[in-house]
Amino acid sequence: MAILVVGSVALDTIKTPTGKVEDAIGGSAIHFSAAASFFSPVRVVGVVGPDYPYKKIGFLKKRDVDLSGLETAEGETFRWSGEYTHDWNSAITHDTKLNVFKTFSPKISDSFRQSQFLFLANIDPTLQLQTLDQVEKPLLAAMDTMNFWIQGTKRAELLEVLKRVDLLLINDGEAKMLSKKNHLLDAAQAILQMGPQTLVIKKGEHGAVLFHKNEIFSLPAYPTKNIVDPTGAGDSFAGGFMGFLAKAGDLSQNNMRRAVVYGSVMASFMVTDFSCDRMRTLTAEDIAVRYKNFCELVRF
Amino acid sequence: MAILVVGSVALDTIKTPTGKVEDAIGGSAIHFSAAASFFSPVRVVGVVGPDYPYKKIGFLKKRDVDLSGLETAEGETFRWSGEYTHDWNSAITHDTKLNVFKTFSPKISDSFRQSQFLFLANIDPTLQLQTLDQVEKPLLAAMDTMNFWIQGTKRAELLEVLKRVDLLLINDGEAKMLSKKNHLLDAAQAILQMGPQTLVIKKGEHGAVLFHKNEIFSLPAYPTKNIVDPTGAGDSFAGGFMGFLAKAGDLSQNNMRRAVVYGSVMASFMVTDFSCDRMRTLTAEDIAVRYKNFCELVRF
Repeated sequence: MAILVVGSVALDTIKTPTGKVEDAIGGSAIHFSAAASFFSPVRVVGVVGPDYPYKKIGFLKKRDVDLSGLETAEGETFRWSGEYTHDWNSAITHDTKLNVFKTFSPKISDSFRQSQFLFLANIDPTLQLQTLDQVEKPLLAAMDTMNFWIQGTKRAELLEVLKRVDLLLINDGEAKMLSKKNHLLDAAQAILQMGPQTLVIKKGEHGAVLFHKNEIFSLPAYPTKNIVDPTGAGDSFAGGFMGFLAKAGDLSQNNMRRAVVYGSVMASFMVTDFSCDRMRTLTAEDIAVRYKNFCELVRF
Repeated sequence: MAILVVGSVALDTIKTPTGKVEDAIGGSAIHFSAAASFFSPVRVVGVVGPDYPYKKIGFLKKRDVDLSGLETAEGETFRWSGEYTHDWNSAITHDTKLNVFKTFSPKISDSFRQSQFLFLANIDPTLQLQTLDQVEKPLLAAMDTMNFWIQGTKRAELLEVLKRVDLLLINDGEAKMLSKKNHLLDAAQAILQMGPQTLVIKKGEHGAVLFHKNEIFSLPAYPTKNIVDPTGAGDSFAGGFMGFLAKAGDLSQNNMRRAVVYGSVMASFMVTDFSCDRMRTLTAEDIAVRYKNFCELVRF
């Protein structure tokens, strides 16, 4: 089944201890699509400026990513500039230029409205609500968000989105911030009261935890030293997670668990190169091998 | 098979956010025995003063813990006083009174020397070396240590002990401190060069990682909010780990992995009450149920 993703499309300038890139392909919708498209068709809704280097995302079209919902507005493409020091978990933002995003409002075409899987990537909760208003109830509506929306003036809208989705993917720091609880289990319990029936909390180097139908599934992270750029790790996790579920087409407990593993697989590759460059050369075989490695890592 | 443990026997005064205890049963050898004795016979070597409240450890004798190696010296029993705030991972030490431990030197009786399993609990590396000098080569010699010995004047002796054991159990902070590496995988690699062929790194609420024969096994922690007192968590982990291996009597990869699960099971119970009080009422059935819960937690 196809996944509709609404999110940011950006050009990122990123510095990490291993190097630097300028105006690299970025944004939550693109990183998500780069990962999810290994599993399922993806439909992207977003906005770019006339300066957007489409040729750099040619690899997405080859993988059944429908970019017809990517509108071109007057002005420049959204740009983000940031830096990671040795703490890979948090970026220092140097500059954010919303540009064409300032006046953006998602328009979901008739052909996209009935998508069975919906991912509201990390964008302004107002835009997430506008999306929900336009789509028919999907089989699974999932969302991501970030500290900026949790703590800022958009908290009320964010809580509204939460009431209307089935699943939230969020990192541990954000989960504690959103719930105002210090302990992860308390945080999870509080968030599950806010609307979503299913919750995935990502803990970076410590793995991920799934809360689904009164069961908890906990997966450690893939042990790797080879981190180059963590930008988009969360989006690629969501891409692997949603991509696998959309491919499977059923939301059983077992599939939800496997989806967490595929999310972790995709994120573990994503961070080993700048931007979503690792997704350009990655193969289905690579993914299958790492999935097996995860089985081996936790078997007893 | 029986396990010989050489370590501290203490009376602990502990304050945590949930309460306070004074002169409670403590010490690495006792906490270890309380957990290990659910699986295998245990032989304790240590020292106490005439003030030691033997009646409080009557439950250990019922579980085949041989306390004949616990010598009584003139003076008072070793006392530790500390506090945990909401960061359960690190204790603030208020006072340490070595007392009878100041002049202690372990004496391993003829009947204890051929123990097939040896655990050098967290004590002065000089005493760990004195123990190794007295025992015949066991099937498995394991050790624990702490920041005080890693950073202090006993580092050379500690490195000597490491050369002579098969296995080190250590927490993540100590592993980084010992290896002088910032990344856990680098730390593990460096420690495995120091002597032990097997390494277990405990990560508190983030689980534990086993490095054994070029394989990595990673287990998340049991999700619990119910923490009362983390004192002895590491010792009870070691107790479950070594206890299971001594019971199984073989050191296969699969058993090493299961031992990590049993270590995690015992630690997850240990922290839910002060001192080793939870070990008094715990049953084999409780352990079996939690082992199954761990299987359920990580299965996919």
